[in-house]
Amino acid sequence: MQQSASEDLKNQMQARLSKVQSLLESGTFRQVRQLLNALKPVEIARIIASSPPHSRKVLWDLVDKEVTGEVVEELPSDIREQFLRGMDAEAVAELTEGLEADDVVDILQHLPETIMQEVLAAMSEQDRHRVESILPYGKDTAGGLANTDTITVRPRFTLDVVLRYLRRHTDLPPSTDSLIVVNRKDDFLGLLPLSKLLTSDPNTTVREVMESDINAIPADMHDTDVAKLFEQHDWISAPVVDDQGKLIGRITIDDVVDVIREGADHSLMSLAGLDEEEDTFAPVFRTIPRRAIWLGINLLTAILASAVINVFQGTIDKVVALAVLMTVVASMGGVAGSQTLTVVIRGMATGHLGPTNMRWLLSREVRVGLVNGCLWAGIMGLVAAYWFGDPLLAVLLAVALVINLLVAALAGALLPNILKSLKIDPALAGGVTLTTVTDVVGYLVFLGLATFFYA
Amino acid sequence: MQQSASEDLKNQMQARLSKVQSLLESGTFRQVRQLLNALKPVEIARIIASSPPHSRKVLWDLVDKEVTGEVVEELPSDIREQFLRGMDAEAVAELTEGLEADDVVDILQHLPETIMQEVLAAMSEQDRHRVESILPYGKDTAGGLANTDTITVRPRFTLDVVLRYLRRHTDLPPSTDSLIVVNRKDDFLGLLPLSKLLTSDPNTTVREVMESDINAIPADMHDTDVAKLFEQHDWISAPVVDDQGKLIGRITIDDVVDVIREGADHSLMSLAGLDEEEDTFAPVFRTIPRRAIWLGINLLTAILASAVINVFQGTIDKVVALAVLMTVVASMGGVAGSQTLTVVIRGMATGHLGPTNMRWLLSREVRVGLVNGCLWAGIMGLVAAYWFGDPLLAVLLAVALVINLLVAALAGALLPNILKSLKIDPALAGGVTLTTVTDVVGYLVFLGLATFFYA
Repeated sequence: MQQSASEDLKNQMQARLSKVQSLLESGTFRQVRQLLNALKPVEIARIIASSPPHSRKVLWDLVDKEVTGEVVEELPSDIREQFLRGMDAEAVAELTEGLEADDVVDILQHLPETIMQEVLAAMSEQDRHRVESILPYGKDTAGGLANTDTITVRPRFTLDVVLRYLRRHTDLPPSTDSLIVVNRKDDFLGLLPLSKLLTSDPNTTVREVMESDINAIPADMHDTDVAKLFEQHDWISAPVVDDQGKLIGRITIDDVVDVIREGADHSLMSLAGLDEEEDTFAPVFRTIPRRAIWLGINLLTAILASAVINVFQGTIDKVVALAVLMTVVASMGGVAGSQTLTVVIRGMATGHLGPTNMRWLLSREVRVGLVNGCLWAGIMGLVAAYWFGDPLLAVLLAVALVINLLVAALAGALLPNILKSLKIDPALAGGVTLTTVTDVVGYLVFLGLATFFYA
Repeated sequence: MQQSASEDLKNQMQARLSKVQSLLESGTFRQVRQLLNALKPVEIARIIASSPPHSRKVLWDLVDKEVTGEVVEELPSDIREQFLRGMDAEAVAELTEGLEADDVVDILQHLPETIMQEVLAAMSEQDRHRVESILPYGKDTAGGLANTDTITVRPRFTLDVVLRYLRRHTDLPPSTDSLIVVNRKDDFLGLLPLSKLLTSDPNTTVREVMESDINAIPADMHDTDVAKLFEQHDWISAPVVDDQGKLIGRITIDDVVDVIREGADHSLMSLAGLDEEEDTFAPVFRTIPRRAIWLGINLLTAILASAVINVFQGTIDKVVALAVLMTVVASMGGVAGSQTLTVVIRGMATGHLGPTNMRWLLSREVRVGLVNGCLWAGIMGLVAAYWFGDPLLAVLLAVALVINLLVAALAGALLPNILKSLKIDPALAGGVTLTTVTDVVGYLVFLGLATFFYA
């Protein structure tokens, strides 16, 4: 039942996609246009993002001009940039009409400086003013996430005045759960939650019911920290101020959810050495160089491991079973190490893990490595003894396994800290450095011990 | 600047933690109690979750009784269960006072049936009624996420009546952005957004301004689909109905954010074969069995790869350089395959990838594998030719690399679908099955070719 609900959503999407594809192939663009423009912008964006590169431009040209702005906003950023690169300043300016200021800034920041100035010049004065107020802030900061469409009130108003003031609006900005209280100079003073506004006596003043113990978010705060604050406090929206405490705008939960999604996506993709922006349907010529770099780095580490084996050619020549069993030592070390590594990287990312409890974790990982090492070394030792009928070989294999699992625990726990202090992202480089260590140590210990006993 | 803001938050947390730890060690529990209870529940929960297992119980006992409910709600679920297991029914009932119904259900669903009935019996009648209405729904469903603290209104009311009705409340439930319109039988009719309520003429009726084209969420919808709907529509809250269309409650964005976080965490941890619930500071005896299973599965696949090498003992005995180079073939295949695998699993999870565009993706992956295979096979071939002075060996290595990278592309693209049709989670089992394929094929092709040409 649950599964089928989940599948239904995906099947609906896939059915739509397959219809669009077959219509495109048969060249009936008019029907594609009808089908596309009956959908919500977010759905149109999904169809474009799920289509192979050669169909995307065709689909994009079929989207009604009035919704292109909203569609562009929902597209993955690398696809968005491709489309924007093909447009002139006036077309971009037209497209940004009706978008929220932070989304416009998002688009502008991906354009070359000259085009950006042209787009700004082509905007209406009010829009330009809104956009320019948050343009200086990087896209990964609170300022870059901020919307300027806020409703502000003064502390001396009565709630009745506020209610009448709101009735002059046709609607409130999306995700408005609070009005923002500011003074004449736009200094942030506090929040007036709608729930307070609705449940308090209309004759009280804003000052009496507003929440003034709230710290507004500084515009230069990193977006992942903004996300943590939202999660901790279950906020719907939060005010953003500049370094003088003046209100810049507000961040809403929907933009925070995007930050969380992108962060999670980044962690997942970087474990495979892939760029976070990688578009699932990127064309071949874009995909090749991105993947090639990581393969090249891995080739270097593989050659390093080979060089270690090479040192022991003589021993392998004598006991060829070593070549058969050495890969087990390396492989088990890699798996055990990546378990530790994943736990440590996650702990560091969530802020649970730091200098205070690192030593405890290290000691646990070593103990876990020792117990699991002994367990599987014992089993593998028996397998090897039976397989090759050589008890010495089996003992050496078991000892090498225990040592490599201990090294894996140490490396998995310590590498993220070492990489971080070298300013290298542990999520990206952790896996490859870890397996380099466990491969090299695994081959070195196993073949080294064998050389000592057999040579 | 941004970096330091991010570090500040983590450092503050770590400083607090280190203070608590040193106070605990010196046995000054009174000060720990003061320090703890000056913090917000979410911060207390973080301190407990970041402490080694032996300190947790001590800290837990120092938390003020009034906030234990809120602290428990913020704890990772495996730690929460440990605490609850040590409490009697009355204590659990006391702890659930003041919690939202969905959080109470979350707690109850982890208790044995008999204890659960006792806890229910110990609750106030009103609380019991609220909880029992959503208890039948699984914790991964919309019903399980639903809160029962909704404000409902009738369509015939005027907005003025609604405003006066709201003023009788001291506050609105958290994340209330809409009132829910129902008839006398509690059938869901539509939503009255607060923004509409505040901007419309007080003399109009609810019926005239309510949004009735909204589909309420069915209680059995899977939570990840609920999250997708929230993301697509930028919802703050959404009504949940049973299969007769009767209102059960509403889901709020803060619970949806937790679903998104847990989903992302699950993807990350399952890539390392770790259980999603793994507590960073789980004690040794819990960690060992969890990790051991994955190591055991890997040992089986490593033995399989060894068995393949074993077949070619005779060839390795003749050309020992094969033992040095064979690991490069396996390693490169593993990396290339896991790149494809990650892209495919992500594409399937987001719903972008399905039967319609799978063929296109497969053909791209094969082309990328071919180009990158030829590139790195060429380079590695030159390295090997120079290293061992054996052009034939170099050519065989290059050919094996190209073939293994092609196989890796195919396996990375097809395995997730195969696993899914076998009802196995591709995120969990994809990596290990993939490297089994690339190891086996890598050794088989390289050593097989060598046997043909050298033997």
